[in-house]
Amino acid sequence: MLRPTPNRLVAQLPDAVPFTAPEEFERQLGQKFLARLGANESVFGPSPLAADAMIKAAQMPQWYGDPLSHELRSELAAQHNLPLDNFVVGPGIDGLFSHIASAYLEPEDKVVTTLGSYPTFNYFVNVVGATLVEVPYHDLAVDLAGLADAVKETGAKAVYVANPDNPSGTFQSKDAIQSFLDLLPSEVLVILDEAYIEFVEPSTFNDPRVIQLRTFSKAYGMAGTRIAYAMGQHETLQPLNRIRPHFEVNIIAQAGALASLKDQDHIRRVKDLNRMGKYDLEIVLEKHNLFPLKSSTNFVLGDAGTKERAEAFVNELRKEGVFIRKPGLPPLDRFIRVTVGLEDDLKILSKALRQVNL
Amino acid sequence: MLRPTPNRLVAQLPDAVPFTAPEEFERQLGQKFLARLGANESVFGPSPLAADAMIKAAQMPQWYGDPLSHELRSELAAQHNLPLDNFVVGPGIDGLFSHIASAYLEPEDKVVTTLGSYPTFNYFVNVVGATLVEVPYHDLAVDLAGLADAVKETGAKAVYVANPDNPSGTFQSKDAIQSFLDLLPSEVLVILDEAYIEFVEPSTFNDPRVIQLRTFSKAYGMAGTRIAYAMGQHETLQPLNRIRPHFEVNIIAQAGALASLKDQDHIRRVKDLNRMGKYDLEIVLEKHNLFPLKSSTNFVLGDAGTKERAEAFVNELRKEGVFIRKPGLPPLDRFIRVTVGLEDDLKILSKALRQVNL
Repeated sequence: MLRPTPNRLVAQLPDAVPFTAPEEFERQLGQKFLARLGANESVFGPSPLAADAMIKAAQMPQWYGDPLSHELRSELAAQHNLPLDNFVVGPGIDGLFSHIASAYLEPEDKVVTTLGSYPTFNYFVNVVGATLVEVPYHDLAVDLAGLADAVKETGAKAVYVANPDNPSGTFQSKDAIQSFLDLLPSEVLVILDEAYIEFVEPSTFNDPRVIQLRTFSKAYGMAGTRIAYAMGQHETLQPLNRIRPHFEVNIIAQAGALASLKDQDHIRRVKDLNRMGKYDLEIVLEKHNLFPLKSSTNFVLGDAGTKERAEAFVNELRKEGVFIRKPGLPPLDRFIRVTVGLEDDLKILSKALRQVNL
Repeated sequence: MLRPTPNRLVAQLPDAVPFTAPEEFERQLGQKFLARLGANESVFGPSPLAADAMIKAAQMPQWYGDPLSHELRSELAAQHNLPLDNFVVGPGIDGLFSHIASAYLEPEDKVVTTLGSYPTFNYFVNVVGATLVEVPYHDLAVDLAGLADAVKETGAKAVYVANPDNPSGTFQSKDAIQSFLDLLPSEVLVILDEAYIEFVEPSTFNDPRVIQLRTFSKAYGMAGTRIAYAMGQHETLQPLNRIRPHFEVNIIAQAGALASLKDQDHIRRVKDLNRMGKYDLEIVLEKHNLFPLKSSTNFVLGDAGTKERAEAFVNELRKEGVFIRKPGLPPLDRFIRVTVGLEDDLKILSKALRQVNL
């Protein structure tokens, strides 16, 4: 039947999506997961002050939220001692990726990233038809020197670094990132995805090339509300304001994020709880010969030896009611990835690992 | 200073946005509005069942929402007696515009719309660099015959109809839309923006060319939560799934929308309350010689005689604490646009109109 045709780029894109949702696995398996440890959500939840603010905001849903997120950006500006216009708020880092790709990339552009790093970034590069240049992990970590070389060799328009990285869990220090920036050309866009930065040490890079992306989805415990921000010089961020849906950030998320920012004690507590939970998770993984990699995040990679065995763990654990994921590409594809859980989650995981017996 | 440059399209776009937010006016004026009647929000609020569902969902914000909005789409499918895949959920109709433009349009495409209709649609056409072909209102209403002629004359890729239309408030019957479709070529994309359809009579057009857009922002009273849906044949909608951020719809909005759909009594109540509120609003406008146009929505246009006088009303009412807007382009630019309010809002409006005395 005749119908409208999508544009030429989209006609060539696959229907496949970066992640199958846990709810979709639940529907396929016909049962709910007992432990949800596959999406790096924070089992420690949001700040109680943020929870109160969100419940309050949920009672006035008929009013549009402020499209400028003025109060939230004012608080961010105060906390970072930067101008208000150095912040753009968006519906999660994924949404901000979409805006950055739309604002900056053209089909003839090359974009450098790490082979096997967060796939949703690649998804949006593909949407605008730019070409990915993928640099392998080096010693199971992001290869900053290799990324810089690839930028220079290919004349890339942009480079993506997740720091801490997902799924490797590795972190590059402020000095390492600064040295990386020193190697890069003066007009390359540097996208620093800092989704997990609160679990280590946040830094600010006041550089015309850099957009730092931060989220309330991880340490702040607000993944379901969809709110994140881009931080960078005003002139570098302004193109995002020319193309984004201005009313896209919901009023409940804005209220929760503002209250969260004002409760940094909660972040310190989460950081402590996460460190302890990660230690316990590492012990469980070790006990089942899934030797853990050191992680700077709220998840741990456990070495299953081979890709096939890692896949078997993921599939068998799902049947036992435990949702985890695994990296898709070498060299990390022999690992399983498990989010830090509460004590009960760990018990369920331990029991399931004994059942699976791979 | 050297910095990354946006893509060639975005470099040419203006920094101006379609709408200045009421919060921004409040910051400029240094006071809060007493009556917020400028954004066609529902003063009647959401269904009490939806409110409960949202407050409950706001208590588990650490979990990502289902990226497939499966439960919500299942309910939509059941209510419309259509397959699940005939629905895509997005963060408001604005967000769905963005996805439709990205999925379907190319810079060489022409897109037909009504001159002076909802400007945010135009904004997203401009973002992808397609060319707008604007057909004037005819007798202050959308000119379907004129739109069809323009599609045929220009070989347009897509045509946009807001029905009921914003800002004219006029409605085209199912038969009128069907006759319009009969006039159109077989491969044109027809974007039916039905944001206000619950205030009149919803219909389903099961046509490979048509995407119907519905929202929970207006009659459902959930503007701040950001949730809407596209309805159309699966093959026509599928390109949106190839480019959208899959986790973009927040969990609180999904819960509220699902509960709302199940409470159609609330929509009937809102429709009744809106009809009565609109009648009272028309009386107030008439009393001040701002003769109202018949409206099929939750807002009314009042004729101020000239563009300049309409602008003066908007500016002076703002100073009196009443937020309203006005259409920007002829022939509707001599009108003010006022959203239906509660009794208190009307009292504040009446008093302000007496003060303004234009």
